[in-house]
Amino acid sequence: MTKALNVGLIGYGFMGRAHSNAYAKVNHFFDLAYRPVRKAACGRDQKNTQAFADQWGYESIETDWRNLLARKDIDVVDICTPNNLHREIAIAAAEAGKMILCEKPLARNGAEGQDMVQAVEKAGVPNMVWYNYRRIPAVTLAKQLIDEGRLGKIFHYRSVFLQDWTIAEDLHQGGQALWRLDVNAAGSGVTGDLLAHCFDTARWLNGDLDSVTAMTETFVKERMHNLTGKVEKVEIDDACAVLSRFANGSLGTFESTRYARGHKALYTLEINGEKASIAWDLHDLHRLSYFDHADDSIVRGWRSIHVTDSDMPYMDKWWVPGLQIGYEHSFVHQVADFLEGLAKDEPAAPTFKDALKTQYVCDAVLDSAKAQNWQKVRQ
Amino acid sequence: MTKALNVGLIGYGFMGRAHSNAYAKVNHFFDLAYRPVRKAACGRDQKNTQAFADQWGYESIETDWRNLLARKDIDVVDICTPNNLHREIAIAAAEAGKMILCEKPLARNGAEGQDMVQAVEKAGVPNMVWYNYRRIPAVTLAKQLIDEGRLGKIFHYRSVFLQDWTIAEDLHQGGQALWRLDVNAAGSGVTGDLLAHCFDTARWLNGDLDSVTAMTETFVKERMHNLTGKVEKVEIDDACAVLSRFANGSLGTFESTRYARGHKALYTLEINGEKASIAWDLHDLHRLSYFDHADDSIVRGWRSIHVTDSDMPYMDKWWVPGLQIGYEHSFVHQVADFLEGLAKDEPAAPTFKDALKTQYVCDAVLDSAKAQNWQKVRQ
Amino acid sequence: MTKALNVGLIGYGFMGRAHSNAYAKVNHFFDLAYRPVRKAACGRDQKNTQAFADQWGYESIETDWRNLLARKDIDVVDICTPNNLHREIAIAAAEAGKMILCEKPLARNGAEGQDMVQAVEKAGVPNMVWYNYRRIPAVTLAKQLIDEGRLGKIFHYRSVFLQDWTIAEDLHQGGQALWRLDVNAAGSGVTGDLLAHCFDTARWLNGDLDSVTAMTETFVKERMHNLTGKVEKVEIDDACAVLSRFANGSLGTFESTRYARGHKALYTLEINGEKASIAWDLHDLHRLSYFDHADDSIVRGWRSIHVTDSDMPYMDKWWVPGLQIGYEHSFVHQVADFLEGLAKDEPAAPTFKDALKTQYVCDAVLDSAKAQNWQKVRQ
Amino acid sequence: MTKALNVGLIGYGFMGRAHSNAYAKVNHFFDLAYRPVRKAACGRDQKNTQAFADQWGYESIETDWRNLLARKDIDVVDICTPNNLHREIAIAAAEAGKMILCEKPLARNGAEGQDMVQAVEKAGVPNMVWYNYRRIPAVTLAKQLIDEGRLGKIFHYRSVFLQDWTIAEDLHQGGQALWRLDVNAAGSGVTGDLLAHCFDTARWLNGDLDSVTAMTETFVKERMHNLTGKVEKVEIDDACAVLSRFANGSLGTFESTRYARGHKALYTLEINGEKASIAWDLHDLHRLSYFDHADDSIVRGWRSIHVTDSDMPYMDKWWVPGLQIGYEHSFVHQVADFLEGLAKDEPAAPTFKDALKTQYVCDAVLDSAKAQNWQKVRQ
Repeated sequence: MTKALNVGLIGYGFMGRAHSNAYAKVNHFFDLAYRPVRKAACGRDQKNTQAFADQWGYESIETDWRNLLARKDIDVVDICTPNNLHREIAIAAAEAGKMILCEKPLARNGAEGQDMVQAVEKAGVPNMVWYNYRRIPAVTLAKQLIDEGRLGKIFHYRSVFLQDWTIAEDLHQGGQALWRLDVNAAGSGVTGDLLAHCFDTARWLNGDLDSVTAMTETFVKERMHNLTGKVEKVEIDDACAVLSRFANGSLGTFESTRYARGHKALYTLEINGEKASIAWDLHDLHRLSYFDHADDSIVRGWRSIHVTDSDMPYMDKWWVPGLQIGYEHSFVHQVADFLEGLAKDEPAAPTFKDALKTQYVCDAVLDSAKAQNWQKVRQ
Repeated sequence: MTKALNVGLIGYGFMGRAHSNAYAKVNHFFDLAYRPVRKAACGRDQKNTQAFADQWGYESIETDWRNLLARKDIDVVDICTPNNLHREIAIAAAEAGKMILCEKPLARNGAEGQDMVQAVEKAGVPNMVWYNYRRIPAVTLAKQLIDEGRLGKIFHYRSVFLQDWTIAEDLHQGGQALWRLDVNAAGSGVTGDLLAHCFDTARWLNGDLDSVTAMTETFVKERMHNLTGKVEKVEIDDACAVLSRFANGSLGTFESTRYARGHKALYTLEINGEKASIAWDLHDLHRLSYFDHADDSIVRGWRSIHVTDSDMPYMDKWWVPGLQIGYEHSFVHQVADFLEGLAKDEPAAPTFKDALKTQYVCDAVLDSAKAQNWQKVRQ
Repeated sequence: MTKALNVGLIGYGFMGRAHSNAYAKVNHFFDLAYRPVRKAACGRDQKNTQAFADQWGYESIETDWRNLLARKDIDVVDICTPNNLHREIAIAAAEAGKMILCEKPLARNGAEGQDMVQAVEKAGVPNMVWYNYRRIPAVTLAKQLIDEGRLGKIFHYRSVFLQDWTIAEDLHQGGQALWRLDVNAAGSGVTGDLLAHCFDTARWLNGDLDSVTAMTETFVKERMHNLTGKVEKVEIDDACAVLSRFANGSLGTFESTRYARGHKALYTLEINGEKASIAWDLHDLHRLSYFDHADDSIVRGWRSIHVTDSDMPYMDKWWVPGLQIGYEHSFVHQVADFLEGLAKDEPAAPTFKDALKTQYVCDAVLDSAKAQNWQKVRQ
Repeated sequence: MTKALNVGLIGYGFMGRAHSNAYAKVNHFFDLAYRPVRKAACGRDQKNTQAFADQWGYESIETDWRNLLARKDIDVVDICTPNNLHREIAIAAAEAGKMILCEKPLARNGAEGQDMVQAVEKAGVPNMVWYNYRRIPAVTLAKQLIDEGRLGKIFHYRSVFLQDWTIAEDLHQGGQALWRLDVNAAGSGVTGDLLAHCFDTARWLNGDLDSVTAMTETFVKERMHNLTGKVEKVEIDDACAVLSRFANGSLGTFESTRYARGHKALYTLEINGEKASIAWDLHDLHRLSYFDHADDSIVRGWRSIHVTDSDMPYMDKWWVPGLQIGYEHSFVHQVADFLEGLAKDEPAAPTFKDALKTQYVCDAVLDSAKAQNWQKVRQ
């Protein structure tokens, strides 16, 4: 029999839904020792929180996260709030002895992140950050191919994350998304929101970044704030581009923007090695492109691997060859890995400590853009 | 509050899982008057059935479908058995006054299908066949574009469904899939299994087929039967290709095979109209290709529509633009539509009656292949 | 030193230009014993013929092809007229002892083709038909892969040739193209014009076709004739689809139309073998898709081979890896092969005799469409 | 009648062939007042030069370029030598009153380029640099779309030029290519060879670059020199990545390398504007990708424009819709434009002066990589 693990979810926006779906599905597809129970949902607005809880089958609600942390029947706290609340909630949760799952980025900056790492290490509680893209099967496969040595020495890493949703000067989206334009709530713009994903995957696949130089731009300088209703200066980065050197000697280029007309969530990565290269993009997330120089020369070409067969990462849990899973499944995989880690008493990656290193890359990028020079990445 | 609808599922293979997932998820994402309850799972093997029920949260199990039909607490019977049991179970379920959801194809042939249609019509019970591909958002969008008249007069319809899993003479898959090679269990080979999907979508998008001529082939003539363990003659069609004329004057070509090396579930369709054309394939199910002759000539080209925005069919229920859903979601959509139909007292397509027409196309195809001539499709 | 070979070209339309370009370029890129000399261009309209000769560097002109054939200084006659003149000119050219290069299709039908084959065989003159697509490097590579046994036993061959230029009822193209709509000039519609290409390549790659069943359609039933100015019944096939069985046991499907909105010259082919599959299309003519089942399962996928490296067929003659050649180069390759054959006293394929077999396939297709039954292909 | 223009070609390598082909073909396809005559080929090795002249129909040869410049019967000098000779030859040619066509990059650096610009301006001779990619029809179309205002305000420009031919430490290519690894002959590595193309196109499409920051890397530090036979330090850049700001406020990223396994000549560009975006790559040079935000939202997607119709730039000169031309045709177009400019007494772009600005960008990039800071681009 599976053992119940009571989850208290804080924040019920886009990520609250994605995590809840993962909790609801994971035991249908994975054989696990633990079973997450949707125990409590927490949000400031009682009515909305209750509606969310009803829809997703949470047994109870809280409107103050401190009350949630005080509950004895909560084993895991899942932080899905805007970034400015991560630090405070995480430290309190650690002190309350809860396991903590925290949405990415870990924090608004490295300093906040350090405090959080100290807190979870002091408390000795299992912790993980939701850099979900590591668990897209094609990305996990990329990791496997690299670890097998199929690429050989790496020369280049390039990655972009392109969106276009803030081109309109007059945004009519819900308040949910708009906190991402507020530097106090978000910490930064595309750097923390999108490049953080790129850096997390890059570090996982290609090791530490040593140094960076970056430029940022804010194309729309003033906007009406969604909460205050006043026109205010926009202080987040709308776009950010980065040159970097990895510790392994390879060169990296990164770029993210919310002004790339025609792209909604085009997260791409390409790695060129001496023996082989790989490429992937989120808009066709089930394919991995692979070029193997060892192929006979007359039949050498980029392979489009449709990552659906049962010998592919995670895919034995789902359907039959040829049939795709989607974005949401990366969260299911991450919960499954967390629960497996729990059973084996091994941390599931990325931990707060691991995610802090990504935060340091973001810090160096933003410092560089400001100082217009190269910055070493804190390790 | 939502109203419970108790489901009894018969068969717990691939489709049993796909349907169960849909029942579990649908109310998390759709606002509906009804809520499917996983009441009972039914299978011949008690241990396996119980394990399935545990994994998927079914409240009870049955090992004889007659017992399931006899239960008062079952509102809906979902038939996920091999094809040779569809007729008998469906008729009994209709007589028991149950709503019926039946896996495709409706039956092994038109004669069986007719009996089933008569039974549900006599009983007046809601009924539906799981031709799930209509509810892939890109396919639903295709229907919408055609209904809006964007394609104009249709000249051509072409569709293939290509697999490669039976190339190996010595198959080591589970018994689950292998009944598909037994003509008694399946009724036919690729015609009922795969072309039935192509015909269902074609009829939905382009209207009735008037006549067909076809050829079939069985590449591996003998195999060891998975149940008897004896080498037996293979009597199903490994491959089938069809020329056809639609009632609207357009020409159709169809082909399916399990011997197309490199393709796992490559279901494709293309429609050429006077004003525009569309194309789609299951291996990249979230894209619809669209060519509009009305575009300025210097910027005219096939558009690759990434069907993820919230104004796309069903996509307002899921995540944010750019993020894909997968194969399984087509079943969620079909359940949602069935439940909405129930609330409005309108049948959800395709009904048994609608699916019978697809069966008639399959019959004409198999008759044509045997007689080596053109056959009119029974209407 | 190269030896001059005097060419007399009959017809100066699209194909007259394509062949002339090949004559002008071939010795710049290929080291050959022979050098084609643009000796005479022949056309009925003196002024237009002279203008063509000036533009392309032909030394002289003729306005009656009989005069051209009577000239002692002409070694090779190149027939680029509408199809209805092929037979008469070819037979006269053979009797005059000329080498003959004839545009495809060989003739309007097999009976005409037989006469032509008899004539060139009696005269013992080198002869070749311009089925140029065999010499697209990616297609030549396909042949090489098949000959090396990489595909194993072949199960399926499928090919289409899709255009959209006759959708408009009121065509405003020059008279040049419009003879293709006149059954007397062309012999047939898409069958002789486009499917003939598909059949030539199919026979080359996969061997003889044994039997066929086909349907044809004429969507626009009447048009104003470009020469008579009168509205006349259209008697050519606008579209044609074919099922077939090859002598090697594989199944073939073919389709061609001029009513496939969005496609200009989309000639595609795909071959599925036991061990590997290949696919190609003319709109991206420099790529060959290849799937090799022998690849490690986790990195198995369709390879997109960019056929530009110097070890690819013909590509050592051109530029550097990564840089494409185009459509016209297939003619350069064919001239080069013809000239090499001449030097070695070996015929260059396809000869009239080889092309006659393609004509027999076209005959069987048109007969089948008329009789609505299966037809054996004359061998 | 066309007027002869006598060309003297210096250097008979890859580019000598590409230009010669253009001279041979241009009047077959374009109606022009001038006709280039292959008058003299010049190279240091008499035998090889004569062989080249024979193959390409040059009427005479020279083994000293000074002799060529001294000839009265030469109208145009075409410089296809390694970069280190551009300056000296060009200045002498200008002084001799010759028109000058010079391979790209204009020079090894801006200082050399300035001297060359001064020389041609003083002499008043027509001059042009072979940045041929402007005349790929898809790229020319991109320019047209931008000039029509279809993209609106530009936010982003990104471009890469990826090769993999120097990954092997032991290169066995001919001396021709290997001068590109010698900093004295080439001036720089990928910056002058490949990024110069990217910068030329970028400046043409998006205007001047204002400032840059760059990093370079040399992966293989020592190689045996192809001429000296000694192992020497490699001083060129194997890879270079650049962040930049354009004068119009948009952000640019550029990268080039010869260590991107799997790419032979992958020159790509993408431009994101407020209203539309475009993308192109050299490996499929006949397609332009275009995204138009003004499309109806449900049919909005990236369009793949197959640039072959007769209303596309240059394409009315070639074949019929659907049939591609290749890399070499960009040179034919450039010669045609040069000859048309001559007839109208208008310079054909890019002139030496225009190309000097690209040289300044390269200088700033290399200075930045050395100094590890941002550099303003000299205007």
